[in-house]
Amino acid sequence: MTLEAIRYRSGSLQILNQLLLPHQTVYDEIRSVQDAYEAIKSMKVRGAPAIAIVGCLSLAVELRAGAGGDDPVTFIRESLCHLTSARPTAVNMGRAARELMEFAENESMEKNSEQLRESVIAWIEDMLERDVNDNKKIGNYGAQHILSGVPRASVTILTHCNTGSLATAGYGTALGVVRSLHALTRLKRVYCTETRPYNQGSRLTAYEAVAEGIPATLITDSMAALTMREMDITAVVVGADRVVANGDTANKVGTYQLAIAAKHHGIPFYVAAPSTSCDLSLESGRDIIIEVRPPEELTSINGVPIAAPGIEVWNPAFDVTPHQLITGGIITELGVFLPSELQAALTGRLTAL
Amino acid sequence: MTLEAIRYRSGSLQILNQLLLPHQTVYDEIRSVQDAYEAIKSMKVRGAPAIAIVGCLSLAVELRAGAGGDDPVTFIRESLCHLTSARPTAVNMGRAARELMEFAENESMEKNSEQLRESVIAWIEDMLERDVNDNKKIGNYGAQHILSGVPRASVTILTHCNTGSLATAGYGTALGVVRSLHALTRLKRVYCTETRPYNQGSRLTAYEAVAEGIPATLITDSMAALTMREMDITAVVVGADRVVANGDTANKVGTYQLAIAAKHHGIPFYVAAPSTSCDLSLESGRDIIIEVRPPEELTSINGVPIAAPGIEVWNPAFDVTPHQLITGGIITELGVFLPSELQAALTGRLTAL
Repeated sequence: MTLEAIRYRSGSLQILNQLLLPHQTVYDEIRSVQDAYEAIKSMKVRGAPAIAIVGCLSLAVELRAGAGGDDPVTFIRESLCHLTSARPTAVNMGRAARELMEFAENESMEKNSEQLRESVIAWIEDMLERDVNDNKKIGNYGAQHILSGVPRASVTILTHCNTGSLATAGYGTALGVVRSLHALTRLKRVYCTETRPYNQGSRLTAYEAVAEGIPATLITDSMAALTMREMDITAVVVGADRVVANGDTANKVGTYQLAIAAKHHGIPFYVAAPSTSCDLSLESGRDIIIEVRPPEELTSINGVPIAAPGIEVWNPAFDVTPHQLITGGIITELGVFLPSELQAALTGRLTAL
Repeated sequence: MTLEAIRYRSGSLQILNQLLLPHQTVYDEIRSVQDAYEAIKSMKVRGAPAIAIVGCLSLAVELRAGAGGDDPVTFIRESLCHLTSARPTAVNMGRAARELMEFAENESMEKNSEQLRESVIAWIEDMLERDVNDNKKIGNYGAQHILSGVPRASVTILTHCNTGSLATAGYGTALGVVRSLHALTRLKRVYCTETRPYNQGSRLTAYEAVAEGIPATLITDSMAALTMREMDITAVVVGADRVVANGDTANKVGTYQLAIAAKHHGIPFYVAAPSTSCDLSLESGRDIIIEVRPPEELTSINGVPIAAPGIEVWNPAFDVTPHQLITGGIITELGVFLPSELQAALTGRLTAL
């Protein structure tokens, strides 16, 4: 079974509602940019690449229905601006918005409204396909890099959050590396952290692993260091919401702590991310804005209170891992790079934001 | 308000059922050793000192009712053996059982059954009082030690799990240090980790903090390193289930990871524990048996499933923090010691197990 988190046919978009996973498999119809904005904000869809793809596909759906009338460029601009505001930390939506806007403006010089709509739709559909292909490249590069470092027959990976089919257009980034290792029959086991407070590990990564028969063990976030000491972990592989020029990486909160523990145990720590998650316009991670989410994510689960009433809460959704702790490398669709190599590797292929 | 987790009057014992906190405040009657065994096993009462006290008090209740008849020594021995088997990692119940058994055997040489029962009951009641007094000493020693290291007016503490009135006979160990700092008006804030999978932090520590007006902020376990970096943490203070001769410390799972993160940030890491939690019979932490608990603690909450069905789980309840990471010291009722000083400090006062 391969999970299909995004169902797109020309003019129609459905997304697997991740708020209801793993207990209910329900696809929600996305008919408009506003529907997509709300789905992103409420985290029915999450994961930096998936947010960008669903956002852009919702625009394609509206354009297919003729949205924007005689002035599609203005409609596209306003839609992209709205979509980008839904969640601030991930870079992919912002990048896609800028690239798509530039493309639309160029096209608008030569084409009429109808032709412009068609070429923007084609651009977006191509983006969907490109993301899956990029993820497969990430999976292969990552698997080969990890295997090159160990003479053993099989490897044990520790991962965080969900970076699989449910976070991307398909296959996944860090979980794509795990999928590739499994496909090569070189994966002994993957340990997935629960990933509080939103439980992306226990709900989503565990769901993907069970669905595809990947040998996986769930642990709490607090057990990661113990797991590194006791379970012969070969590498820690995580995704990224944003990688900046010096290699500092914003990712789901807890990543920083995992990187510290990996360093302590001498275990290579990898970040797996498409080049579209890299943001060379920022020099260091200090400049990344971190989203702080509502206290209720810690104090209740499925609406049922689980904490003492009246307690104050701090709920940052992400943290920044300094590049010094990314000891394994940054796995992209272009290859695996040390943080210090990233900027040179991407320059020329990526236009700075 | 001061929390009363254990209500004991001669011949009667009630415990605050911690499975129902923070939503319901229900006291359960403990009428027998078997009641106490079940309460410990099911975690209605938890925390190494509290387990020992409730176990022994349940024996006092039965003895008051005449249990053991003409051979109270055999009844006491069998009861203590049963109680010790309920949870293996904490040392306090085992130590109390051995000391009480030795006392009972000595007394039995000179006293009849009725007199023996009376003196054993008195010994147990004295243990209850001693534990509260020892905790207050721990709180004061710990607070003074932390304050001596910082010129600032107030301090910010990070703690794990629950080590307060709900884990001891009263006042608490690590949370006793926090209480003492608060009483001295030198506590700026305490950050409490949620403490998955059993949520002792969000349910119990948060409950105690709210009840007593201690400024406290709840975070997930995965946010601890970020909190250390961002929130000017003065010290990390945790409790212990067992401290062995070289200072290695078994405590709630996640403690090891916190100690690694504290070391990375140069923040002093303290263990607060009564000398009764120290076990000089073990040389190093490698010899400590770690309890592995049921998968359901991760996969459901209040009986409601929260993880993907079919996922495998590893659920160790404790981990061992090597003494090298206990950089602040071990806070006991006798004073604060470096791990390397512990054995000498306790020898002569503690009989080895």
